[in-house]
This record gives sequence, C-alpha cells and structure tokens, in this order.
Amino acid sequence: MIKAGIIGATGYAGEELARLLLRHSEAELAAVSSVSFTGQKLSEVYPSLAGICDLTLTDEDGVIAASDLVFASLPHGLSEQLAEKCLAKGKRLIDLGADFRLTDPAEYERWYGLSYQKPELHGKAVYCIPELHRKLVTADTAIIGNPGCYPTGIGLSLAPVLRAGLVKPDSIIIDAKSGVTGAGRGLSQTTHYPDCNEAFSPYKIAQHRHTPEIEQTLSGLAGEPVRITFVPHLLPVNRGIVSTVYADSRREVTAEELYRLYRESYQNEPFVRVLPEGTVANLGRVKYANYCDLSLHTDPRTGRIILVSAIDNMVKGAAGQAIQNMNLWYGLDETTGLTMIPPAF
Amino acid sequence: MIKAGIIGATGYAGEELARLLLRHSEAELAAVSSVSFTGQKLSEVYPSLAGICDLTLTDEDGVIAASDLVFASLPHGLSEQLAEKCLAKGKRLIDLGADFRLTDPAEYERWYGLSYQKPELHGKAVYCIPELHRKLVTADTAIIGNPGCYPTGIGLSLAPVLRAGLVKPDSIIIDAKSGVTGAGRGLSQTTHYPDCNEAFSPYKIAQHRHTPEIEQTLSGLAGEPVRITFVPHLLPVNRGIVSTVYADSRREVTAEELYRLYRESYQNEPFVRVLPEGTVANLGRVKYANYCDLSLHTDPRTGRIILVSAIDNMVKGAAGQAIQNMNLWYGLDETTGLTMIPPAF
Amino acid sequence: MIKAGIIGATGYAGEELARLLLRHSEAELAAVSSVSFTGQKLSEVYPSLAGICDLTLTDEDGVIAASDLVFASLPHGLSEQLAEKCLAKGKRLIDLGADFRLTDPAEYERWYGLSYQKPELHGKAVYCIPELHRKLVTADTAIIGNPGCYPTGIGLSLAPVLRAGLVKPDSIIIDAKSGVTGAGRGLSQTTHYPDCNEAFSPYKIAQHRHTPEIEQTLSGLAGEPVRITFVPHLLPVNRGIVSTVYADSRREVTAEELYRLYRESYQNEPFVRVLPEGTVANLGRVKYANYCDLSLHTDPRTGRIILVSAIDNMVKGAAGQAIQNMNLWYGLDETTGLTMIPPAF
Amino acid sequence: MIKAGIIGATGYAGEELARLLLRHSEAELAAVSSVSFTGQKLSEVYPSLAGICDLTLTDEDGVIAASDLVFASLPHGLSEQLAEKCLAKGKRLIDLGADFRLTDPAEYERWYGLSYQKPELHGKAVYCIPELHRKLVTADTAIIGNPGCYPTGIGLSLAPVLRAGLVKPDSIIIDAKSGVTGAGRGLSQTTHYPDCNEAFSPYKIAQHRHTPEIEQTLSGLAGEPVRITFVPHLLPVNRGIVSTVYADSRREVTAEELYRLYRESYQNEPFVRVLPEGTVANLGRVKYANYCDLSLHTDPRTGRIILVSAIDNMVKGAAGQAIQNMNLWYGLDETTGLTMIPPAF
Repeated sequence: MIKAGIIGATGYAGEELARLLLRHSEAELAAVSSVSFTGQKLSEVYPSLAGICDLTLTDEDGVIAASDLVFASLPHGLSEQLAEKCLAKGKRLIDLGADFRLTDPAEYERWYGLSYQKPELHGKAVYCIPELHRKLVTADTAIIGNPGCYPTGIGLSLAPVLRAGLVKPDSIIIDAKSGVTGAGRGLSQTTHYPDCNEAFSPYKIAQHRHTPEIEQTLSGLAGEPVRITFVPHLLPVNRGIVSTVYADSRREVTAEELYRLYRESYQNEPFVRVLPEGTVANLGRVKYANYCDLSLHTDPRTGRIILVSAIDNMVKGAAGQAIQNMNLWYGLDETTGLTMIPPAF
Repeated sequence: MIKAGIIGATGYAGEELARLLLRHSEAELAAVSSVSFTGQKLSEVYPSLAGICDLTLTDEDGVIAASDLVFASLPHGLSEQLAEKCLAKGKRLIDLGADFRLTDPAEYERWYGLSYQKPELHGKAVYCIPELHRKLVTADTAIIGNPGCYPTGIGLSLAPVLRAGLVKPDSIIIDAKSGVTGAGRGLSQTTHYPDCNEAFSPYKIAQHRHTPEIEQTLSGLAGEPVRITFVPHLLPVNRGIVSTVYADSRREVTAEELYRLYRESYQNEPFVRVLPEGTVANLGRVKYANYCDLSLHTDPRTGRIILVSAIDNMVKGAAGQAIQNMNLWYGLDETTGLTMIPPAF
Repeated sequence: MIKAGIIGATGYAGEELARLLLRHSEAELAAVSSVSFTGQKLSEVYPSLAGICDLTLTDEDGVIAASDLVFASLPHGLSEQLAEKCLAKGKRLIDLGADFRLTDPAEYERWYGLSYQKPELHGKAVYCIPELHRKLVTADTAIIGNPGCYPTGIGLSLAPVLRAGLVKPDSIIIDAKSGVTGAGRGLSQTTHYPDCNEAFSPYKIAQHRHTPEIEQTLSGLAGEPVRITFVPHLLPVNRGIVSTVYADSRREVTAEELYRLYRESYQNEPFVRVLPEGTVANLGRVKYANYCDLSLHTDPRTGRIILVSAIDNMVKGAAGQAIQNMNLWYGLDETTGLTMIPPAF
Repeated sequence: MIKAGIIGATGYAGEELARLLLRHSEAELAAVSSVSFTGQKLSEVYPSLAGICDLTLTDEDGVIAASDLVFASLPHGLSEQLAEKCLAKGKRLIDLGADFRLTDPAEYERWYGLSYQKPELHGKAVYCIPELHRKLVTADTAIIGNPGCYPTGIGLSLAPVLRAGLVKPDSIIIDAKSGVTGAGRGLSQTTHYPDCNEAFSPYKIAQHRHTPEIEQTLSGLAGEPVRITFVPHLLPVNRGIVSTVYADSRREVTAEELYRLYRESYQNEPFVRVLPEGTVANLGRVKYANYCDLSLHTDPRTGRIILVSAIDNMVKGAAGQAIQNMNLWYGLDETTGLTMIPPAF
C-alpha cells in the first residue's frame, strides 16, 4: 500500500484527492494538513466525510513524515521549499500547483511574477498529462508537476491534429468555460451565490496563467511554437470544463477524417472518449469521473476545425489526474481507483 | 456473480441501477430493457455510459431470461404480471415501483385507483427499508418491494422516537423537498428548465401517494395507527431529499436525549449517519451516496421535536437501496458496491 | 417629489430600494451611503446600474441632510441613534432593520441580546405590513419599522383564518424556504456558490429572530397569544420565499370556504393574489414584483389547514414593501412605483 | 394609444411582449392568440399574470382585427401568409420570426430549406437592429423583421470595428452562450431540468440558422463580404446571451483606442452601454432589461481583438427590441416602456 499524504487538504482539490484515495485499492490516506484548520478533523471541514474519514489535520512536516508520496495543493510560490524537504527525506511529490509545470523559467516569471529559486529541482520534475507525456516519468523522476485543469482538456483535444500537422499553429483560439469549483474554496464576491447564479462572463481575457502551460504542451506536440488566444469563462455549475477550440486547417479536412485520426490516436486510452459522430461533448456526461470526452467538427464554409473537450475540472483536471499520475509512477494500472462512472444527472 | 437485469432501464432509477451494478463486485449487469428504446444501446440513451456499457436494450422477457435477479422500475399497475412471470421462471424480483409496497389492498386502491389482481403474490413480497425491516427478508421471500424515496428518509428519521413512544402519533407533520430527478425522465412543463429553475413550490399537497406507505411504516414502528400530514415540494436541484419532520413530544425531551437515543439505535448501521449535535442535515452532503443523514432538534417553546433527514433520492431513495436489498437478500455485506463517498461539491 | 435617501445602500435591500426609487414617479433618489464603499459610485459596486445612477456613496449624515425621507438598511442595534438624528432634523425614517419591529422590549432583548436604549422613540414608531396595519400610520408617525421578509408572507397567509378564529393558536407550524439573497451580500461559506448550489437544508431551527415578530403579528390578528414553531431553509435560488403553514382547524373547514374567506378579505388589496383553486403558490410567479401569492389547502384526513404563500423576499419582503409604506405614509396610491409584472421565467 | 396584438402569445417571446406592452404608456395590449391554448386566458397559461391580464387567447384573425400593429412570434415559414393578411387590412406587422430577416432569398432557402413564396412582400419589409438600421424604417415600411437574439448582441459588438475597417473580415469567430429560454417553451430532453442543469455544451456547431443573418449584418457594416464561424452553446441559466467575439486586427490596436471608438459610436444610444475599461460584460448585469453591454479587449501577443457583448435574449434579443422597433416606427422615444433597470441579482 502506498502511504499517501495531502498538503493543503481542505482546498477543493485536496478534498477530492482525499475522497479518491480513501477508496483506492493500492494506496491509503496516511495524513492530511491544512494551514487554516490545523487540529480539526477533515470531516469537520467537510461534513460529507462524516463517519468515513477520521483523520485530523496536521501540518506540512507531519504529512511528509507519514507519507511515501506527498500530494501538494498549494498557492504558487510555495512548492519549491516543500519539494526540497520531500526530496531530502526520500519522499515523492506530486504537485497540483503551478510551480513545476513550466519548463521555461522566463515564462514562469512572466506569468507568475516570481522566479524559480531552486532551478536544480526543476530538472528532476516531470510535467505529465499521462496520455501525452507518460514516457517521461521514469525511475529518476522525483517530482511530478500535475497539469492545470484547462491545459488538460485542451492538450488532449489538440494533440492528434497538431501531431499530424493539420492546423496552422498561429490560428488557435480557445474559448473555455469552467465550473465554479475551479475558482477554489476561498470566498469572493464573484463566487457569492447570488452574484454567480444566473450570471456568466469571461474573465482574465487573454491573460490567464494557464496560457503558457497550454502553449508549452501544444508547441511540444506541434514541434514548432504555438501561440494561442485563450479566454476562460466562469460557468454557473459546480464542476466541469468545456473547451471549444478553433483552428484553421492547413488543407481540407472532413469530420470523418478527423474521427478516424482521433479514434486511432486514442484507441488504447481508457480515459479519452472520442464520442460518436453527430454528438457533442458535454460536461454533464463526465462530471465526477476521470474521462475526457472529445467531439470533432468542421466548418467547411471557413476551413476551420472545431474541437470540443469536456472534463470534470476536479477529477481529470486535478485530483483524478494526480491519482492517474501516481498509478503510472508506481507501475499500477492507470485506472486503479479511477473507475467511477459519470452519473447521468 | 449474481446475474442482474433491469426492466425499465432508461428511466432515471433504471440508469442509476445500471451504473451501480456495473461496478458491483458480486453482481453483473446481465440485461436491460426499455419499452421506448428497444434495440438501441443504453449508452445511446445515456451518453455518460459511452465506452462503459455496451448492452443493447431488449424487452421484458429478454431480461427475465438472462437474469437471476430482476430489478423493475415501472409505472404502477404493471408489476404483478411481471412478478408472476419471474416467479414462474424461478427468478427473484426487486420492484422499485409501488405495487408491492402496501400491505393493505384497500390503501392501494384508495391511493392508486387500482386493485391488486393477484393477492397471493403479495404474501410472498416483503417491503424492506433494510435498517427497519431486514429481518423480514428470508429464504422464502420471492419479491422485495423497494421503498419509495420519501418514505425512506422519513421512516429512518422517525423510527427511534416512535419505537420509544416519545411522540404523539397524530401530531406528525412532514414537509419534504425533493430534487427534480424525483419527477423522472419524462418531460413536463413543470420540469422544463426555465419553468423549474429559480422556482419552488409544494405539489400534491396532502395528496401524495407516498402517504400511505409512510403511514404503514410509521404505524408499524409505533405499534399504533399513525396519521400524518405530508407535503412534498419540488426543489430546483438534481438530486436529494430533505424531509423536515415535526412532532409533538409526549414529555419533555432534550436534544441530548434524542442524540443518545439515535446514536444507540443506529450505531451498527453503516448508512445512517447521526450527525454531530449543532449541525444540520443537508442534501449537499449525501448526494451520489447511499447515506441517510439525520439531525435532531427541539423547540422547547412549543414542546415539539424536529427531525431532519437528507438522502440522495436516486441512491438511498431508489437504486442504492435496491442494491442494499439485493445484498441483504443474497447474504452479502449490505455495503457491497455502495461505498461511494459523497462528493463535497 | 419626495427626496429619499438610503443608508446602507450597498446591501442587497439597499440596492433594490435604489432601483425602485430610480423609477418612482413621486420620489427621487437624493443620496446613498455605505460604510464600506464611501466615496465610490453606487454603480461601481453594482455594475448593473452603469449609465443609470450616477450617485456617489456618502455617509449617514450626508444622506440625512439631503433627504426628506430616510430608508435605513442596517444591522440591528444601529437604528436608534439614527432615528434620533432623523427626528432631530425633522426627517422621516423607514427602517428596514429589526430595531423598530418588536413592541415588547423584552422580546427584543431575548432574541437580539440587546435592549432598547431610547424607549421613547419606539412609541413614535409603527410596525407596518400595509395590508394588516395601515391604519396605524398617521400624521404623528415618525418612524416606520418595515417588516422582515418571512413575517410578511406568513402574516398575510394567516390573517384571515386567525381573525375568523378558524385555527388553534398553539398548533401553527411554519416551514419556510428562502432564496439566498435573504442571507445578504456578505460572504460566507454557506453562500459560496459550490457549497450552496445543489444543496439544501434548514438553518436556525426554531431559533430564527423573525419568530417573535411573526408571533407579534399573529397574536395581534388572533386576539390571543400565538406561539409558533418556525423553521427556515436556505433555497438555492436568488430570490423568493415560499412559506408552507400548517394549522389545526377548530372545526371542519373546506377549501371552498377558505377561498371564499380569503377572496373577501383581500378583494381590495392590489398586492395580495388569492390564486385560483387547484393551483399552488410558487415563488417563480412573483419574483421581481411586489405580490404576495396565496394558495389554500386542507388535509381532511387530519383536520389541518395548509396555507402556502410566495413573495419575492427583496420586493414584498423588503424594498418593495418599504416603498409601499412610503406611498402610504405620503398619501400616494400604494401601488405607485410598484407595478412591476413578475416575469414568467 | 397604439392597439397592439400578439400572435403566438404563449411562447416565451410572446409572453415577454405581453408583459412589456401591459406597462407601455403609449400602447395597449389589444388581443392575444395561440394555436395550442385558444379559449384559455393568457393568465392560465402564465400564472405570473394572474390578476394583471384578463385577456382570452383568440386566433390569428381575431388579433389582426383588434390591432393596429401585430407582433408575430411564430415558427419560420408561417409569416408570409400572415403578412399578406395584415397588409390587406392595413395593419402593421413586426415579425419576431425568421421569415423577414434575410434579404437574400437564396440564403433563406439554404439555411431554412424553404423558399420565399411572396417575394413582393420582402421589398416592403425592413430588418432592423435600431442602433444600426433605424434610418431604413420609413413611412413606407409595412413589415419589420425583428432581429434574432444572437445577431443583435453580435452586430452591436462588431459594428464600430467593422465600419472603421479595423478587423479582417474573414477572421471573425463567434463563441456565443445562451440561456435556456432561447430554446423556447417547447419541451425537449435537452431542456429537461435534470439534463440541462449542471450541464453545458455547444450545439448546432457552425450550423446555426442565425449565421446568415449575422453575416448579412456584418457584411453591411464592413462594406464587403464577411464570413464567420459561429458556435452557440446552451447555458444553464434562464436568460441572457454572452457572445465572445474574436477577430484579427488589421493593424495594432490598443484597448484605449477601441474604447474611444466605441464610446464615440454609441454615445447617443440609450441601450448600448460601453462598460468602463477593466470590467467585463456579464449577462447577470443586463437580465430583464433592454441593454446591450459591451466590453473590449485585446490580445497583443496574437494581434487579436476580443469583444464581449451581453444582452437579455428575451428583451434586447427579442421582445424588448420589438418594442423598441415599435417605438421607432411610431415616432415615439425609443426608450418608451423600456426603462427597466436590470436587477443586480
């Protein structure tokens, strides 16, 4: 049994991780920590866990000591020091924050306003959307930088066409819509129920910090620099992201050809569902599960390709993918503990 | 492995049953049927099942033939003929409809406008909320009448005080609120999104068909006739029922005493969570799981007891309880296949 | 034109008042204040008012100076000092808070933990649900205590049966459900979107501070002490309250008799709609308007009467009723500025 | 007083028209019709109108006879015959359907699968977004083709940059999101509450029938053919459309320049609100009112302009704009009857 601990367990991603680990056949939830709620039980903060989880929230060091593998879900800028501690004690780290995602320190500085303090750590870290990067995770890996929610669905939707060179790399526009859990557990006027309910708008237009992470993944897939326009929106639902991706095709492409390409690309991937032609990806069909649903469309009038991906931002976009990365890292079947079927309603 | 089939698999309860059976370690989903969608795949009707369930919808006879145990989720009035068929072929039946719930034929006739055609069948049927009636299920049981959604949470909330004789049997008022899945998959103006969203009202005031079923359970617990006022409301959420129950206490009772009584009553019940004092049952903490959460309150100014129960109407209120009944009937641990942890959001 | 000012204009009730006053034909919005946002424009706090209202938020004294009539929407305990100032300057006050609602100082102290500091002020104040108390507002009135949201719909639903002596005064149970704006603009975990959406529960069970206000109104109507059990619930919609009221009838009463009584009682009331028999009050039919919808039901099996009222908590339950009180006080038609038709969706 | 009638009054747009006309100072609601509910009162179909509107639903001919001006809200293909009748009787027609929107018969045929039967009628019809086309409405106008919901917000958002020649006409991508009332009152599985709530997806990807209408407007503004990619999404809110519009700029453009251009363009338009820089258009700020809110953004990394518009699909996107067209046509102030302030929540 893998002893797994969670630092930052009272955030939404942390709680979801706890929930998944508590039912994982090869891991046990060894310890949980929180800065704000130390000393309380996790089930006091989340009454949904009443009678299920009896763990008391401890601190960072307590979690590291109790765990073989540490999951961290922290604000950016805090993970390097944590990684150093973990490595010093021979513990593995899966970081759900942003600090180990970008390979180019200049991009991190540009978008996060901070610079890497311990560059040597980043050489031991792997950024991993398993379907795209699983080969990079090896025995030498010390840290996995778990991908952001938006980059996951977007990377999976564009991978086949970028690898096949079917779309122009400077033409990609991504219009994404995320449920409110994406904004976290922290209170804000924007996420106050009466302000958020029956409302809808974009935010951080062309300025969202997931932009360089998306471009890093897409450029790697294309083998050339990809520069995108990325606009996220806040959607009045609890969970899920739909990303609608627009790209100019380099040559005429039919939907049939796209479907052939995608089915082939993802035929062995348990978590990527290329939907039947004529249907459209909908976040209502993936919530509470680890799937990424994809539907493929063309606009022959303009020569554009339109890709739609749907994921649960808290599962495939955060905690579920972190478990998938754990499975991969420990040589388990990637689906272990992730076989939840999305409820229909 | 129990071969389980579902008749009426495209209704909401049927789909939920399918979802649970597909991940049950001791049962397999052998066959599914539908009157409206025969010949289609279940995953065409419910795209959330894409890539997960490949079964094609057949007819009633197809399901009976393929199954050891038949779950039926049908409109009332159709289950007797089905039960007869099942018994003739030596198959067990768990009926999620109303036809095997009421032991008094007169009550069935009064509330449903139909009379039992095959009275002999009803003698072989057991109505079973497992926490209250599990001893009634024996080797001779041929049919289990699975309880309705409202009666489940209400029965569990009142059982301890009724058994202890703490409340006046003619004083019970139940104000219940159910999510929209309770109204089923069929279309109606009331459940059309713009009419249902940002709206709220009671319905079938003092006339809901679950009334006699609730009274049957409560009278059994009290050992004397209990007559209730029951008013359900349609709540603009997908899932869950909160029942707020009011009763005059026979003598002064404190919250502490109530909590003591309830903790004792339910100490060995894995699915009933008597919440910590000072907290309140909330459907947001039980959705997608098989729990019944209970909180207990008093109004010393008026001498009333107030009980609040929360369940997921589709799980503990329908499909989950049906699986629990299956487990019980087959001698399995009642929690088998029902260990889902409610998500916090 | 009445010069009207709002103290506490950035709370939800304050903003709604501003919105109504900006379109009132006999009043003008003269000034607005806020403790938290002084110096900003109201339209910066509420972008929905962009291009419509150019007022800058000032302080309490600024509002009093600029106004003939002051509306105050403040936390309890702050209105006495304000009232004193208004009276000293010859300004009228309509207080939307709790400080001028209860006539019995002991009840105020019991439920609010504070005592009246200036008892003489309370003699000049009138608590007024216009349909029930309008005769109390006279030339000598200096302050109107605007009713709470729950007490309004509940008072209107019970008035006819209490006046007619049809129900037992100790039998009344009120199960009320309020939209989230009722909890105000202040942030809390309970009203954080992902915690509030797809959730539902009661709160302050038998302990809500509107209890003594409701009992004061009901006792006045009955001519004898009325003691209630009152349980409010938080409903995941923005606006509206449905109150489901249960009472034991003193003698057999039919729905027809009830409808006759209510139609007669409210035949001249423009804002009380006694719905057609066979329909049920629904908050979706009154939102954004000043109506109180009533439907009347009986449970002949138990001898109970069931009354359902629906209002918009921010309009008839707060700002709209305050305008109605202003109209009444100034001798205007009570409907002036309140002719909004509820949208159907 | 203008005698106005509504054909198709029980659809959502029809009801909203009724609501607005009932409070219009220069018009009266003379008659209403419905195919499905003839003989019933409008307030029976929409209980929100109880006590407010006493009209009984009649038929098409009844409405024409009683009205000076007929509003029609019908499925496409039915308006030509109606227009002929109106013209024969000297009645004006504002058609909220699609039949008098497209000037090119070939486009109508391509997208609607029908051809114009009475081409002469179309010469007497004017398609009118008032802010863009009001000069076309003259004494000779016999029919106004009221714009579709999506084309309104999109046309207003792009008009200034297209007129100024700032964007490449073949680069425009429109990602629009509409509340569920946009799908109408008719029942469907997609708009069944449990299927629609907590779900989100695009629909009719690059195939929506508003595409040619949008292109017609944009081409007229640009003075050259504009071909767009248009993808609408179904948003789980009752009302409102947010359109996020992407276009490649022809030269470097700053947000400041855009704001200057837009403020100048719309300075005299009472219903177009160019929001303060740094804010973002949100449908939550325009619902229940006739505004079109616009926010303007640039992506300097890619040279794209991003425009966001928010309207209430039922008001500025349908009934409100129809009233605005009526006002314009009759020489009234365009804001008459349309001064509703959007509620903040």
